[in-house]
Amino acid sequence: MLELLETKIIAALREIVGKDGVTCEESELMVYECDAIAMHKRRPLAVVFPRNTDQVSRIVRLLHENRIPFGPRGAGTGLSSGALAMGCEEGQRSVIIEMARMNKILEIDYANHRAIVQPGIINVKLTQAVAAMGYHYAPDPSSQTACTIGGNVAENAGGPHCLKYGATTNHILGLEIVLPDGEVINLGGNGAEAIGYDLLGAFVGSEGTFGIATSVTVRLTRTPQTIVTLLADFLDLTDAGRAVSAIIAEGILPAALEMIDKVTINAVEDSVYAAGYPRDAAACLIVELDGLKAGIEAQARRATEICRQNKARSVHEARDEAERKKLWAGRKGAFGALGRVSPDLFVQDAVVPRTKLPEVLAGIYAIGANYKLRLSTVFHAGDGNLHPNINFDGRDAEEVSRVMAASKEIMMLCVKSGGSISGEHGVGADKISYMPMIFDQASLDKMLAVKDVFNPLGLCNPGKAVPAQRMCKEYRKGFDYQLITN
Amino acid sequence: MLELLETKIIAALREIVGKDGVTCEESELMVYECDAIAMHKRRPLAVVFPRNTDQVSRIVRLLHENRIPFGPRGAGTGLSSGALAMGCEEGQRSVIIEMARMNKILEIDYANHRAIVQPGIINVKLTQAVAAMGYHYAPDPSSQTACTIGGNVAENAGGPHCLKYGATTNHILGLEIVLPDGEVINLGGNGAEAIGYDLLGAFVGSEGTFGIATSVTVRLTRTPQTIVTLLADFLDLTDAGRAVSAIIAEGILPAALEMIDKVTINAVEDSVYAAGYPRDAAACLIVELDGLKAGIEAQARRATEICRQNKARSVHEARDEAERKKLWAGRKGAFGALGRVSPDLFVQDAVVPRTKLPEVLAGIYAIGANYKLRLSTVFHAGDGNLHPNINFDGRDAEEVSRVMAASKEIMMLCVKSGGSISGEHGVGADKISYMPMIFDQASLDKMLAVKDVFNPLGLCNPGKAVPAQRMCKEYRKGFDYQLITN
Repeated sequence: MLELLETKIIAALREIVGKDGVTCEESELMVYECDAIAMHKRRPLAVVFPRNTDQVSRIVRLLHENRIPFGPRGAGTGLSSGALAMGCEEGQRSVIIEMARMNKILEIDYANHRAIVQPGIINVKLTQAVAAMGYHYAPDPSSQTACTIGGNVAENAGGPHCLKYGATTNHILGLEIVLPDGEVINLGGNGAEAIGYDLLGAFVGSEGTFGIATSVTVRLTRTPQTIVTLLADFLDLTDAGRAVSAIIAEGILPAALEMIDKVTINAVEDSVYAAGYPRDAAACLIVELDGLKAGIEAQARRATEICRQNKARSVHEARDEAERKKLWAGRKGAFGALGRVSPDLFVQDAVVPRTKLPEVLAGIYAIGANYKLRLSTVFHAGDGNLHPNINFDGRDAEEVSRVMAASKEIMMLCVKSGGSISGEHGVGADKISYMPMIFDQASLDKMLAVKDVFNPLGLCNPGKAVPAQRMCKEYRKGFDYQLITN
Repeated sequence: MLELLETKIIAALREIVGKDGVTCEESELMVYECDAIAMHKRRPLAVVFPRNTDQVSRIVRLLHENRIPFGPRGAGTGLSSGALAMGCEEGQRSVIIEMARMNKILEIDYANHRAIVQPGIINVKLTQAVAAMGYHYAPDPSSQTACTIGGNVAENAGGPHCLKYGATTNHILGLEIVLPDGEVINLGGNGAEAIGYDLLGAFVGSEGTFGIATSVTVRLTRTPQTIVTLLADFLDLTDAGRAVSAIIAEGILPAALEMIDKVTINAVEDSVYAAGYPRDAAACLIVELDGLKAGIEAQARRATEICRQNKARSVHEARDEAERKKLWAGRKGAFGALGRVSPDLFVQDAVVPRTKLPEVLAGIYAIGANYKLRLSTVFHAGDGNLHPNINFDGRDAEEVSRVMAASKEIMMLCVKSGGSISGEHGVGADKISYMPMIFDQASLDKMLAVKDVFNPLGLCNPGKAVPAQRMCKEYRKGFDYQLITN
């Protein structure tokens, strides 16, 4: 009987989007089982590809009326399993609404520095479309050549240049949304300024649990006159950490300030992304400064001095745009390069106060050694946003259990240092059990109640962002998941 | 019997905060009848002055249990009647919780660029406390020498320098909140990064309808190396508007970009704030640039050229810090100076796309002339945030009715141009009837439902921010209050 319902639903979906707009072949559904971390897998019931807001609304209304869970998906580059078809209960299969066909730029308004895009547009395509006019879209996740702006909105994605320019939430001016019952509303009001309650801000980062964005008004940022990119290398990782703190303490706000450790350097240099990072360094920093030519050159000299004072072996300035791009290709290709080292890679994400970087990094490597794991780090050092990465083999259950145990210890270490369980990748299904570490039950209850305002049946992207009360109780049973206070 | 309850409540409040912590003398309550616009008045039942979070929690619990409405108040410098003791129904009196005694700096963490303050601290006092270390608190409302950071949080206050640095919401990293039932929670999580739903962002600007902030973690901003302040004067206001658009279009992001019209110039020059603005100019612009010395000087030259190309009669650079302060004292004292012209002043607040400034300004002056009102403008031109001001005599009922009619027309003009009904002063009780102009009922319903999550009985600061459904229906009865779409 369930199968009959499923067959009827798929037929009804095909009526909305056409025959080529629904996939339910098991072999094709495998592609949609996971996102960019293969740690968690859930096969959907079907994947549907709408072309416009009306189709999204009709799809959602159909699924809502039939009480079938569903969730949006962009390019599937997420790192917290936010795009997984979790279902409302164990074993229940849900429908993925894949936004890839809604990838147009609807309007560009240079005079008011904004553009309206469909959510399926690939992040870098927007920048490419406005570059000739001297603009860009500032948030630049490492996956920006593949990820979608809709997915960035769902996870409030960051990126290297969010140090200076802020994460996705700072660049979203308005949204058209299909609510979990199919109704269409606009957030952000009629004008550029948010008044009333900032539901726009609450939607960004809500991981598809409040509804599905079908149109996104974004801020366009003027491309700076001059960009200077420095590569500094250190024989001791602690010195690199100190240089990061010292640069920021000096009052310099780099456009980006990244750290890459030795394991990652060598993985990158072994790959197609080889950027010329020195293989024998304990860590490299990429320090990028942007702004007006005259001011930035002086600032670059000062940043160079600070690196040297903190025992940098060398500080090299990219000679031209080609070399600058190469340095960045290495950094942004690091996850791919690490992926070549082992069948699986677990990219972690946490944030700590910048001043605690040296001690937390030492703690993370100690945890990796203790669990005998291949652990490396490459991350947004300027804002204390760590990415410890663990190479492993998903077929080795014993190794997987060590990966999970180490990850949990790393999270606890970061939270105990005054940090948080995610800097930019979101909570998704991956981190949901850690939420009780950083929020008390009263705050989680308020979040759940706000979710109920938008998504009362819980059909829209279940199992993400905030754990249900029942789940919290389970998580809190183990002492480790209690609220950590500093 | 009601009086007996009131007497008992006041006795119970005195038990919590001490005898000197409650005022209920009618002569003293008059002071708390209104905020900085005297357009609306409501006398409270009592004013209570807590000293710490525990007292706030106990006060709120008492009032909640006795179903007596209440609301927080800072310095009462607001311009949308957000701090008024509205009561849940016509004629009902409510208790004001005055936060002035909770005015301490609790912690300053320079290394991580943040401070924790109590909500009653006066805005500029925080900047004064950290100035010697080279930091400041960026949001700077014109009332910054009097207004409190708690009030700024409630209204998501702006200020001249929010053009570059963003409004209050961009500078709030965490909040301790007493919920409307007395429970204490923390928003912003344990670390600096927001994960889960951004309830912190939703709280900022919620005008006390979600609860009362009792501790505020704010971002500290490095004070720029160099500040250049230009005064440009124009014989035609439209030229000044064009210069604003041209400066921004050039890719220059001034720290502040203010416009002052002729009426305001003369009111300022007649007052203690006299700044040397040329009295015969149709408008002056204050253009402030900040950053690194070398870069900023070149940018100032370019801004000067652009002003001249747009027919500025003269462009003058402040010679020193004393002159710079004088130029700003004139601008920030403008509302006070205008206040001297007539018994009452209605400071309006709206936002329009920057490119529409010249035509909207012309429309606003035409409305003022049509209603035979003394209308002037002084405002944050760089972000299109208008402040049309109307001098009037509140004792003249006929004039008051013209003020109200003109204000409504001005709001409609701004919304029709693609703008919004408030840029920085909030909705409060003053603009609540205009909300249906810019939000459809589905969006307003979601806002009300989110309010119910925090404030289910509606006792906490009733009549602010978002109109109840019943009110919406009334407002929409008149065609003018229908949703305006562009």
